Order: sequence, then structure tokens, then C-alpha cells
Amino acid sequence: MSNSADVKYVYLFSEVKQAEDLVGGDWDKVRGLLGGKGANLADMTRLGVPVPPGYTVTTVACNAYLKAGEKFPPGMWEQALEAVKSIEKDTGKVFGDPKNPLLVSCRSGAKFSMPGMMDTILNIGLNDEVVEGMIKLTNDARFVYDLYRRLVQMFGSVVMEVPDEVFEAVLTAARKKAGVKTDAELTAAAWQDVTAKFKELFKSYTGIDFPTDPNEQLRLATEAVFKSWNGKRAIDYRNASKIAHDLGTAVNIQTMVFGNMGDSSSTGVAMSRNAATGENELEGDYLENAQGEDVVAGIRQTDPISALKKRAPKIYKEFADISRKLELHYRNMQDMEFTIEQGKLWLLQTRDAKRTAAAEVKIAADMVAEGLITKEEAVKRVKPDQVDFFLHPQLDSKAVKDAQEVARGLNVSPGAAVGVVALDADLAERWAKGEGKPVIMVRPETKPDDVHGMLAAQGIVTCRGGRTSHAALVARQFGKPAVVGIEELELDLDAREMRVGDLVIKEGDWVSIDGTNGIVYLGKLETVVPDISNPDLLKVLSWADEFRTLEVWANADYPVDAKRAREYGAQGIGLCRTEHMFFESERLPIVQRMIMSKAHSDKVEAISELLPFQRSDFEGLFRAMEGHPVVIRLLDPPLHEFLPGHNDLVEELADLKIKLQHAHDMSEIDSMLEQIRIKQDYLTRVEALKEENPMLGTRGVRLGILLPDLIKMQVRAIFEAAIACLKDGVKIKPKVMIPLISHVNELRTMRDILEAEAKKVIEENNNIKVDYEFGTMIEIPRAALTADAVAQVAQFFSFGTNDLTQTTFGISRDDAERGFLVEYQQQGILDDNPFGSLDGDGVGKLMGIAAELGRKTNPKLDLGICGEHGGDPKSIHICHKLGLNYVSCSPFRVPIARLAAAHAAMADKK
Amino acid sequence: MSNSADVKYVYLFSEVKQAEDLVGGDWDKVRGLLGGKGANLADMTRLGVPVPPGYTVTTVACNAYLKAGEKFPPGMWEQALEAVKSIEKDTGKVFGDPKNPLLVSCRSGAKFSMPGMMDTILNIGLNDEVVEGMIKLTNDARFVYDLYRRLVQMFGSVVMEVPDEVFEAVLTAARKKAGVKTDAELTAAAWQDVTAKFKELFKSYTGIDFPTDPNEQLRLATEAVFKSWNGKRAIDYRNASKIAHDLGTAVNIQTMVFGNMGDSSSTGVAMSRNAATGENELEGDYLENAQGEDVVAGIRQTDPISALKKRAPKIYKEFADISRKLELHYRNMQDMEFTIEQGKLWLLQTRDAKRTAAAEVKIAADMVAEGLITKEEAVKRVKPDQVDFFLHPQLDSKAVKDAQEVARGLNVSPGAAVGVVALDADLAERWAKGEGKPVIMVRPETKPDDVHGMLAAQGIVTCRGGRTSHAALVARQFGKPAVVGIEELELDLDAREMRVGDLVIKEGDWVSIDGTNGIVYLGKLETVVPDISNPDLLKVLSWADEFRTLEVWANADYPVDAKRAREYGAQGIGLCRTEHMFFESERLPIVQRMIMSKAHSDKVEAISELLPFQRSDFEGLFRAMEGHPVVIRLLDPPLHEFLPGHNDLVEELADLKIKLQHAHDMSEIDSMLEQIRIKQDYLTRVEALKEENPMLGTRGVRLGILLPDLIKMQVRAIFEAAIACLKDGVKIKPKVMIPLISHVNELRTMRDILEAEAKKVIEENNNIKVDYEFGTMIEIPRAALTADAVAQVAQFFSFGTNDLTQTTFGISRDDAERGFLVEYQQQGILDDNPFGSLDGDGVGKLMGIAAELGRKTNPKLDLGICGEHGGDPKSIHICHKLGLNYVSCSPFRVPIARLAAAHAAMADKK
Repeated sequence: MSNSADVKYVYLFSEVKQAEDLVGGDWDKVRGLLGGKGANLADMTRLGVPVPPGYTVTTVACNAYLKAGEKFPPGMWEQALEAVKSIEKDTGKVFGDPKNPLLVSCRSGAKFSMPGMMDTILNIGLNDEVVEGMIKLTNDARFVYDLYRRLVQMFGSVVMEVPDEVFEAVLTAARKKAGVKTDAELTAAAWQDVTAKFKELFKSYTGIDFPTDPNEQLRLATEAVFKSWNGKRAIDYRNASKIAHDLGTAVNIQTMVFGNMGDSSSTGVAMSRNAATGENELEGDYLENAQGEDVVAGIRQTDPISALKKRAPKIYKEFADISRKLELHYRNMQDMEFTIEQGKLWLLQTRDAKRTAAAEVKIAADMVAEGLITKEEAVKRVKPDQVDFFLHPQLDSKAVKDAQEVARGLNVSPGAAVGVVALDADLAERWAKGEGKPVIMVRPETKPDDVHGMLAAQGIVTCRGGRTSHAALVARQFGKPAVVGIEELELDLDAREMRVGDLVIKEGDWVSIDGTNGIVYLGKLETVVPDISNPDLLKVLSWADEFRTLEVWANADYPVDAKRAREYGAQGIGLCRTEHMFFESERLPIVQRMIMSKAHSDKVEAISELLPFQRSDFEGLFRAMEGHPVVIRLLDPPLHEFLPGHNDLVEELADLKIKLQHAHDMSEIDSMLEQIRIKQDYLTRVEALKEENPMLGTRGVRLGILLPDLIKMQVRAIFEAAIACLKDGVKIKPKVMIPLISHVNELRTMRDILEAEAKKVIEENNNIKVDYEFGTMIEIPRAALTADAVAQVAQFFSFGTNDLTQTTFGISRDDAERGFLVEYQQQGILDDNPFGSLDGDGVGKLMGIAAELGRKTNPKLDLGICGEHGGDPKSIHICHKLGLNYVSCSPFRVPIARLAAAHAAMADKK
Repeated sequence: MSNSADVKYVYLFSEVKQAEDLVGGDWDKVRGLLGGKGANLADMTRLGVPVPPGYTVTTVACNAYLKAGEKFPPGMWEQALEAVKSIEKDTGKVFGDPKNPLLVSCRSGAKFSMPGMMDTILNIGLNDEVVEGMIKLTNDARFVYDLYRRLVQMFGSVVMEVPDEVFEAVLTAARKKAGVKTDAELTAAAWQDVTAKFKELFKSYTGIDFPTDPNEQLRLATEAVFKSWNGKRAIDYRNASKIAHDLGTAVNIQTMVFGNMGDSSSTGVAMSRNAATGENELEGDYLENAQGEDVVAGIRQTDPISALKKRAPKIYKEFADISRKLELHYRNMQDMEFTIEQGKLWLLQTRDAKRTAAAEVKIAADMVAEGLITKEEAVKRVKPDQVDFFLHPQLDSKAVKDAQEVARGLNVSPGAAVGVVALDADLAERWAKGEGKPVIMVRPETKPDDVHGMLAAQGIVTCRGGRTSHAALVARQFGKPAVVGIEELELDLDAREMRVGDLVIKEGDWVSIDGTNGIVYLGKLETVVPDISNPDLLKVLSWADEFRTLEVWANADYPVDAKRAREYGAQGIGLCRTEHMFFESERLPIVQRMIMSKAHSDKVEAISELLPFQRSDFEGLFRAMEGHPVVIRLLDPPLHEFLPGHNDLVEELADLKIKLQHAHDMSEIDSMLEQIRIKQDYLTRVEALKEENPMLGTRGVRLGILLPDLIKMQVRAIFEAAIACLKDGVKIKPKVMIPLISHVNELRTMRDILEAEAKKVIEENNNIKVDYEFGTMIEIPRAALTADAVAQVAQFFSFGTNDLTQTTFGISRDDAERGFLVEYQQQGILDDNPFGSLDGDGVGKLMGIAAELGRKTNPKLDLGICGEHGGDPKSIHICHKLGLNYVSCSPFRVPIARLAAAHAAMADKK
């Protein structure tokens, strides 16, 4: 290590090159050395952007200071004083000189933005003499005393830890004395008094006089920043965010500029593009003769940035050029803070701007067209969640503009919901289910007892709770828009109303919630579904397709779904659930007859009646998919699902028996008895089919083995449909899939049945050649663990991760998502709901075992996923890493999956 | 390969040494060359046992014959003729010489006993002239013609494939003509006629004359044996038994001896020890002046072998000496066939004898004492199933002796059952459950509809079906003794009776079944439970302990069970189910109060009332186990199990409401209303606790996380009990186990609760040091898959293979064992019921993954199993291979497990 006295601890903003050289040109290391803010200010300075001059004390200095028991490392302070001299030279002002005083700010700046660190101290360099001098210079005693009292206040509270409340008490007293309501109405004399009082306070709390020496102020402020690195809040935050404790913070000292020095001064914020729409136009607000905090506080009506164009076209042009320059440099839309001090434009900060999903997509597409970023960058920039925005209802932005905002809270579950307020779960359910009213359920917080109301409601609002509160978790689980933790919201359950300040909303009144942004509005606002065919979105998605290696297929049961899936970019059907077709009104009675029949011949006859239906279903799918693969899963659900419910039957029987008592003639009695007999038969069958744990019961392949005739019928329907297509010259790629196997022998049995029946159908049709594949779902741990054996029979695996998650975790989704899974997430036992996002450590590991074993047997084994996870970005990432060939998801989530698959491939390349 | 003309294809029985030398002294290879039977005869000959002289044609000759297109290899036939000459020399008889004829038998003999191969041809060497000569020699024309007709018949049917039925038709006609009922009544003349007719038949079917040249007879018989190796039945059998097709069969030619040549001739079978009791005494039956088949047919009353001692003490002694010699040589009890021909004893065969479990154990122990076998061999010889015999009721052997046998079938499920006959499942259930009668259910065969009856019955009998029939599988599944496939049993469901021949048994009559041996007896026989403290058994078990490496622990909930487990040899308690204690009558109301209480304080109060009970439970266990490990599993079952059933509550409520209508006064009404309110509360709670899939529901650790107060109470009880023991100087080794975890964080949460509470208890008790371990069950696939993480927190794993099988297979035991699992075994999809015998390929593999991952984190991790598989020999073998430290099973199965663990260790050493 070099002699620490030789170490350069202080860098002027203009010395960025030297910092870069020190760390070998690595910008990440520059940020490590100068902190994020310091590096950014230096970077802007190098670009020639007008930044108020200043310097940065490095993180190395901070660490040395802390290590040495809160002592500056040798040479550091001297370097800092040198830097002040340099600033004086640049600005022509002198630190502590009443005739032309230099004032500076002091801010912390670690490598990563970090709450809990020391905030800003402004106006360093003021003391009684400098104040006198400045009043002469500005001729504005009120302005100068306001600066002075701010310095004393900030110095007291931030550096010396005097409770801010005592300063606030003085301000309140001063307003009262002056008989005014706001600080803005206080006179110069009043501010002078306040400043004097603040100094007294300072002395009585700290035991020392307020330091009048500007260098002493600077030194104390610098030390305060260093010390704040080891403050409790900062340490807690680093622990929670897994940020290393040895990074240290830098200190940024920067010349003060003032937007409130007359009419040629102003201050504002602006974005380089429109954050709502993405239009390429400077957008923002500013205030003449004002300070930054006035813009934020919203007390005065701001002017749009376009007004500057008229009033000061030259400055506007300079600003627009800078904006463009920054966009070019950072290759992203910028969010800039600026101040104009007596006609001179200064940039105080720039950063990548926040924007809506719509804007993100448009900007990404535009910037590629402008040559600013590559397609790859454009794809990376759009988040899958932002694509989701295009698929779900949102509040209409026009309606929102005129709507009254009730309150803001945490945006824990996205989307819009509109309904009448219900203040408890029972009422929410009664109104929603009983009267068909859309309901927004509002509660102080939610508990497991409230889940039935939450499920019935359109959306959820709570007064308490954070991102992992019960309400937030359940809302996300079930896709209900929700705003939680609105602290100013008061519920009065006696009066059956809710209040925010003076606003009173009665139970039953309409409200609209924007879960995407965490806002509640009054009234019944219009909602819109953003357009998935947005050309910019289509562009970004088509670029995504160039980068991804995973194919994206869709789960679709009907030709209409298949068509939509194709429009959204699906490359195949990964799951056609044949049983859904059994529930249609003309078919269900036949299915029931099949289940109820006692004689084998009756059963077979009923099954054969289903054949034409299934054949035409499959033919439609094949035609819609035009040669793309179609995975048809043979019958999966347990038989009882096709029969009436047990309780319904018991009630119907009881009713019939009562009616029988009031029958009038023999024919009526006979008819009643016949009905009772039929219902009784159903009840007997339903009871016989009843299982302790239906999730683990007689369904999937187990049913197929017990009912081979049904399998034969389905196979026949598939092959007859295939042959009908082939005869018409329609290309087809059928894949037959067996669900729920746990042992390869189950699959063997099914294959034998299938091959025999397929052979028959083919022979009946002049031996037309039908290419097909035979495969299985992997949704039971045992199937995954013995995948090497299974792959001897299966040509493809499709991971059914819903059931695989249930069996691997040993949990029943129906029960758990409303029960202990929520508790688990609240207690932090699980990070995610494993049904929402694939559990990589457990379920993912098992999938990896299956993939490896399967491919050991058959390197060409086709691997996919058809559980709901197939549409979840995090899960898609895992699927990519596991080397799957495709993910299959709901048609609506196909665009999200396309993007997520591209992201996964890109991350993998890195 | 040497010139085939030089190859020795034929070995005299006396040439065993030469055969041994050829294959380097390897007896297994001698058996491969000479076949099992040939090798055995040669072996006996070498021992000096009187075996009728003969020779063996090798399997090599057979293979050469078949390969050459059914031609003897060069030199073979010449060697055979040489061997005949040698036999002539030994016996002083001459092949084909009417004056002193040599007759021989021809038998096949492959390396392994194999149905489907050619059977025996006797009396080769007879023709018209020899017959004449023999009649002169024996002066018994009837005897000689009987031999002759047998030769023609066997030669025709076996060598030339003339249907045996045509010969039988002639016999029937002959008996009719003679006006007699049995062959024994036919005269010499009749046999002469039959022989002539047989020869005619032979010619008309085969087109050739019956060969009169003895050498030609010998050649054709030899070829027939060779050819039978490739007969369809033999090939099918080899395919089914996975016997290689290139082994070939040997041919054994042996001098005929006759036990029916007068009063100094006899024939019989004998065992070297008593097959029922194991007593060391010659035991068997014989018949004077008779042939072997007369003994088997049971037409004449046999004499016990002890009778020979009186009648021919010298021969008896010779036989006893031979018996002893053979036992010494084969080091096992022998089952011998012998013939005495005119005062000369011949041994025809010896083999290891079948024996009862009791005999097996006694013989094993005795032979060790006699120095005949080692302890290791004794342990190996006793099968775990045979130990099982000592644990279950069997029919009393004295009762059996006098009982009437109804019929015999397949012994598919062991044990004895006594009950009244019920001919259908509904009646079986009604009698068993409704009237408390023990029932034997008798059906033509069983189907899934019959299961309720089978479960209610003591035992099962069917007319049809084999070892994997529905009846057999279900019976074994549920441990019901069963005899199936009794073909002669006729059921008359109209007359409600069953018949075997003339015997009629009415429904409701008593029968007794011996499932161990597959026999049905008439009447209500006594049963006995053999004694586990049998000293021979204890000896064998203690030897087993010397060889096993797996420890054997027991699952026990109460001190009395723990004591029994210790008596049976358990080395620890692997599973104490704390919840069983909750069901006791004085505790259940407290448990219910805990579940029903709404206020947290009420819940905590109820829980605290359970503390003294649990503390004394645990203290009792610790004391009973005297320092051996005790694994205490914290609460596992779902709460609803402690509440009344849903349907019961609904019925009780309905009853109460009806009673309310008939109430007489206000106080009665009030009391009714109060009761209704309570029941209604219960019903509400039961409905709230209801889960779709309770097996996957809120139980185990999930419950613990929702009810930490209960966990605290259990922990307190354990530590207070531990401290009470320590204070008394009682050694303890408590291990606390958490059930049903799927994520390490669940375990962390539990550990934190446990450690905090344990610390408190210890501090309250003067900081007495309590050594304990903390561990978890591995019964959910995810826990197994993430065992490396779990082992960071757990000091031991105990595989809960019941639930692990359910989740790994995705099946619910309650439903599946009565449903599709039976179908699966019948169809051969699964070999075993995975709940009976651990599924090595799936569940076992997962256990292996868990063991490996867990030990990677903590090489000292203690691994055990506490599912029911812990008492199953096959499963114990898997556990041994997985490197587990112990198996834990029901106290009753501890002896079986000790033996099985020894077998596993021995097999592993090989």
C-alpha cells in the first residue's frame, strides 16, 4: 500500500479522468470510489453539462476515517481545502468572504442509493458577516435569512442530532406570532428572529455555539456524512439489502445555486421524453423565482417546461441540447433537476427516468429506430410485467385526469378495479355473489377469516400492512388489484363509512382503485384494456424472438383459443385438456351415462357416442395450428367432477321426498319415485367415487387404466381427426400425452392401448401414414425420479408444475393458498408463493433431475412445461436454465413468456 | 476347442471326480455340466451311499446335439454304450438279456429344476423276450406285464407324443371288461392284453413298431430329453424365470430297482429330522412290497419309518447312518427317497427338506450346537417370514390333527382365521360389524365391490384366482389370512351353501383356515400364538445381532410399549407419537377446548392444562428406555381429528332440534338451546377446518407454526421430564423431531421456538445440563431434495416412508389400497404394494438423494426410518444399502427386523 499521505482522497468534479485512470477505466469502480452521485456529477461535468462546481471526498477516505477511530486520513483535509480554493477560482466567489461569498451544499453518496445515510446540508459558508454581505449583494434580507435559518436548522438536526421537532416548534410559534399561516408569509425580520432563536436552541442542545467558521462547518458536515455510514438505520438497510458494509460513502461538496434570485431565476424538473406516453418531447414543470422544494411541495402552480421556450428560448434550447446530449450519453430517457440562477442554467442531477409501461415500450422501440440502443437493449429494457399491463384492464387515463383521488397507498397487486365499498368480508361476499354487485372490500387489515370476501371482491383496500401483509399476499395470489397500507384512511364500522380527512365515503359508494400505482379514486371510473396489438410492443416482442432459445407454446382447448394463441405468437399447443370438452351441455349427459352405466356394453356405447364430438374438436385444433405441434392430453380429472355434487343431490332428494308427500295422483307418484330412484343412483355412485384426498386419487392415467375403452375412443378421435386433415392436405403434428404417471409401466400400458387402436384406425384408412409422438406429463415426484426409465417409452416430457409443486411440497393448493401458505409468506418462511413462481430449490431441482435422467436415456427427448408457471417470468428463467425446449402458458401470457424467454437467454449469455 | 471326438460326454455316477477336475473343482460348474439331479446322484455315489448305478450324459452333449440339427456329437453314443457296459458289470445284469435283464430309467436333469422338461421313462430294456425271462425269474407275470405296459405307455406319450388319453381309454376299457374299479385288481392276463393293445396304439399313432431293441429304446429316450429342452413349455418357463437358454439339459440313465418284489422289498420317503418340530429323529413313511407311486397315491396305509426299526433293524441302522452322513455332507436336514429291493437298501434321491418355521428355527439352533453349521449359516437359514410365524395366531397343531380338511388352495396370505362362512360381502360386513361374529368370507373370486366385506372378515377363501388375484392382493394388504384358487370348491348362492365333493357347508357354519399352508378345515378350531420367547429363536436372533450393522429401534408411544420393545431387542424409540396421548379420555376435552377457544388466552390456558399429562408421559418413556435414545415427534395430525365428525354433528343437531319441539318447560328449552349452540359451534369449527386434501393439509410443522404455544408446551414437557429423570440419576437421550417439513425455514422456526423454551426450563432448574438432539422427519419430497439445507439445522433425519410414499407416488393410501393399487398389482404394473414394501426405484432413490445431500452437509448426520417399512425385510435391505443408522418399527416386528438387518449385512458382505 502506498503511503496514505500520497493518496488522492479528493476529486474535483472535473477530475473524473484521474479517477478513471486510478481504477483502470472501470466505471463501476469509479462509482465505487466516488459514490453514485459523485461519479454522476463528474460524468456530467466531463460532458460539458453546466454543473455547479464541486468536489467529492472518496469512499476510501470514509473507510480510513472510520478505521482510524473517526480521524481524517493524513492529507485528506488539506486536499479538501485545496479543492475549495479551486472552486473559488472557478466561480470567482470566496468561501467566507462577505463581499462575494461562496456557499456550498454537502451530500452523502454511496455506490448504491441507500436510505438511512445522511441527507443534505445546504448553504454551508453562511455566518453573521456573510449574511450581512449577501443582503447587500442581493438586496433581499428575507431570502438571505431564510437561507441562514435553514443552515442552522439542518446543521443542528442532521449534524448535531438536535431533534427537528424543536426547530419546528419555533417555526410554529413564529407563524402564530406573525398571525400568518405559511412560512412564505413571514417577513425578513421574522426570519431574522427565527435564526437567532435557532442558534440559541443549537447551543442549549449541543453545548457549543453554532460554528461560524465556514471551514469548521465544512469539516463537521464532512465528518457527519462519514459517521452516518455506521448509523443504525444504514446498517440495518445494508443487512436487509445485502450490501457490503465495507463500501463506505463518499461526500459531495457542491456550489449552491439559487432559483429564487429574481425573475431571471427559476427551478424545475424535466424528463427528456413523455413519461406517460413515451413521446419524444421535453416534458416537465418549473417555477420562476423559486426553490426546488417549492416545486415538489406543490404550493404554487407550476408552469410546463414548454413555457420556458417562449420566455427564454435560448436557455430552453440550451436545456433541450443538454437533454439530448445526456440521452445520447446514458442511452436512456433522463429525469433532470435544473436551476436557472440569474439567467444561467445549471443541471443539478440527472438519472434514468421512471415511466409507464406504455412509455417504456414506445421509448425502447423509438430508441432502436433512432440508433440510440440495440434491439437487444430494447428487449432487455422492457420488463415482462410491463407487457402484462397491455393485457389487463387499467383505469382509463382520461377518466383518471378528472377523477378525485381519495388516497395513496402501496401498489401491491396491479390492475384496475371498480366497485362499491363493502366494509366486511361477509357483506362483500353477499353483495358480490348474491346481488351480482362489483365490490371493493375495504378493511383495516385482512385475516384468514376475510378470504371469502376478498375472493368475491373486485379489489381490496386496507389501512394497514405492507407488501407482505396478508391482504397483499392474498390479492396477488388471486390476481385481485389491491392498495394497502393507506394510513390516513379511517374506517368507522359503526357508521359504516370510511374517511380520509374531510372526505367521507359511505359503504355502498363507488370507488375505483389503481393497483398498478397504488391509488384509490372516488366514483366509478372507466377502465380500458390496453391494446396487445400496439405496434411498438409487437416490434419489441419480435426482437425478443430473435434472442430467445426457449419456444413459447400455449395451453388451449378449443380452435378459437388456438387461433388467439397463434396471433400472440405461440409456436404450438403445449396442452389441450380434452376433458374440458366433456363439460359442454350436449356432451355432459353422455359422459354421465357412461359413468352411471353398470353393464360394460352400456359404458362402451356411451363412450362411442362421444367419439364424433372429440374427433371434430381435435380436427379443429389441428387445422387452427397449421402443422405446429398440438399436445393432446388424454382424460385427466376424476370422474366425480362430471357428476352433480354430493350436497346438491342430498338436497334434491330431500326436496323430492317432501314433494312426494303432496303428490295428487298415481302417475305423479310414479314420476316422483322414478326421479328419486335416479337421484339415489347418482348419490350412490358419487359416494362410491368419493375419495379422502381426491388430488391424489383416481384420475389421469389411473383412470385410463381402469377405463381403457375411454382411452381407445380418445385415441381413435385423434387419429381419425389427423387422417381427415391429412386427406385435405392440412399439415399436422399431433402429440399424445398421458397425465399423472408415477411408474413407467403405466405409460407402457397406455402406449400398448394407443398403438393397437392407432394401428386399427390407420388400417381402416388405407394405411395413411400418421406421424405422431407419444409422451407424458411429469407431475409426480416418482415419475421425475425415474425419468430414465420413463424416457424409454416417452418421446417427450411436459412438466405439470402445478401438481408437481403440490406433490413435491406435499401441499394441496386449494387448501394452502387460502391457509398456511399466506402465513408462511408473512413470516418469511417462504419468499414466494410456489404456485405463482416455480420453487427452484425444490421443484426446480426435481425437474433438473428428470431432465438429466430423461436425456441420458434419450438425448433428443423433448422437454416442456405446461403448468401455470409457464407464463411466469421467474419460472421461465428457471426453465431456460434447465434446458427445456419450450414453455406453454395461457394464450394471454404468450407475449410475456416470449419476452421473459429472451431475458433468460440474455442473462444466460452473460 | 478340443476335437469333439475327444470330449467326454458321458459320466458314470462314480466318475464325479473326473467331472470336478474338468471344471476346476467348482461344484456349481459340475451342476452346470451334469445337471442338478446328475450331480446329486454322483455326489451321493462318492459318499458311498448306495445309489442304483447309472450314468449322466452332459449338458454339453445336449447343446451339441441341438446345434448339429439333432445329431449326437461324435463319440457320445459310443461313450453311452460303454457306460451301459460298466453298469452291467456293477450290477451283474445285462441290458436286453432275458436271463438276467438290466432295466434302466431315463430322466432329464437341467442345472435348475425346470417344469416343462421331459419327465421320466421307466423300465427301459424290456421287450417280449426280456418279459418272458423276467417272469421266469420273478415268477410274477402280473408285476412284469405291469412294468412292460408302463414302458410302452411312457415311451408313447413322452417320447413319441401319443396323447396320453388314448392309453387311459384302454385302461378304462380293461377295468370295465374285468368288472373292477382299480388297476390293482387287474390280473396278469389283463395286463398282458393291455400291453398288446398299447403296442397297437403305438404303431397306429407313430407309424412304427414299438422298438424292441433296448439300445434303440435308450437312444430314442436320450434324444427325447435333449429335444424337450427346446419344447414350448420349457422355453416359456425359462423366459418367465430368466433362465439362460444355452444351459442345456443332462440325461440321467439309472438302474431300475423295485420295492414291490416281495415282502423283503419296500419303498418310502423319510426326513432326517422332524419337519414339523425340528426334533432330531428320522421321520417318514414307507410301504412294504410297493412302488414309490403307491406311497404318494395314499391308497394303502403307510407305516411310520420307526416300524422299519423293528422289522429290519439292520437296514434301519444303515438308513439312519446314511441319513446322518447326508446331513453332515449337505449340512442341512434331508428329504430322502429310498427303495429296499429284496433286502438291499437303495437311495434314489436326497434334497434339502421343507420344514415349518418352528422346525427351521430349532434345526438352525441345534445344528450350530452340533457343530454342523456356523452361526452365520444358522442366521441366514431362518427367513424373516418364519419369525413372523411366532408373532401371529396359527391353528393349534393338535386341533388340526383331528380336524376334517375341506380343501386345499393357494396359501396367499399367512396366519389362521376362524369364523362362520358368509357368501357375500354385505352379509360378511353385517355379521362382523353388526353382530360381532367372526366371519370367513367365501366368494368365487373377489372384486373391488367386495373390499368392505373382506375388511370386516377374519379371513378370505375363493374358488378362483392365483397369487396376484384381487383377493390375494387385498388379503395381504390388510393382513387377512386367505386361501384362494380352490378349484373343487363349488358355491351355490341360491341354496346359500358351499360344496366340496359330497361335503356340504351351509352359510353360517364354522370353518377354520390356515393361510400359511393354504388349507380350509371344517369347524371352529383352536388357534395359538407361538411363543416369541422360544429359546431357539432367541438364540438365532442374538446371533443375528452379531452380524447386523443397522440398529433396530421401535415405534412406541407409551412406557408399556417401550418396555415390550426393549424385551424384543429394540435399541431405542424411533418414533413416539405425542398426539396419541391427546386422545385419552381425560385429555380429549382439554384438547377440544383448546381448538374451540376463540380468545388467545383461553387457548393458552387449555394448552397449559395438557402440560402435566405430557410431562409424565415423557418421563415414563425416558425411564423405560434407561438411557437409550427416545425420538419424540411433536404434534402431527390435523386438528379436526380431535373434534367430532361432521356427519355426527349434523345428526346430533337434527336430533336436538326435534327434541326441542317436544320440550316441556323453559329450563328444558334453555338447556336444549345451550346444547344446540355448543354443537353448532363445533360444526362451524369442523367446517372451517375441513380441507379438500387433508393428507396434504394443515398438520405437522404447519400446525406448529400456526400454534406455537402448543409446541412450547410440548417442549416444556420434554425438558421438565428430562430434568426430573436427571435429578433421579436416570440416564436419558431425548431427541426432538419435527414432522412434515418441506422447507428448512420451517425447521428453523421450530428450532428457535424450541431453543428459547428449553433455555427457560433449564434456567428455571438451576441450569441443569440436558443433552438433546433436534431433528426432522423426511416425509415430503421437497425436504429430501433440499436435505443439504435441512441438515444445517437438523442433527438427525428420520424417513417417514408412509407419507413419503404417498407424496412421491402422488397417491392417497386410504383411497388407493382399496382401489387402483390392487388393479395395478393385478395387471403387473406394480410388483408390490409400495406401502408394504419400500419402492426402491422411486422412494428409495429419493431417500438416497436425501442421505447423500444430508451427509454432505453433516457427515455425522444420524439417519433412520420410522415408517411401517421399518419392519419389512425387503425394505430393511434397502435401508441397509442406503447406509441408514437404524430402522424403527412396531415392537412386534423388532425380532423380524433384527434378522432382516443381519441378512442385509450378510448379503452386502458378499
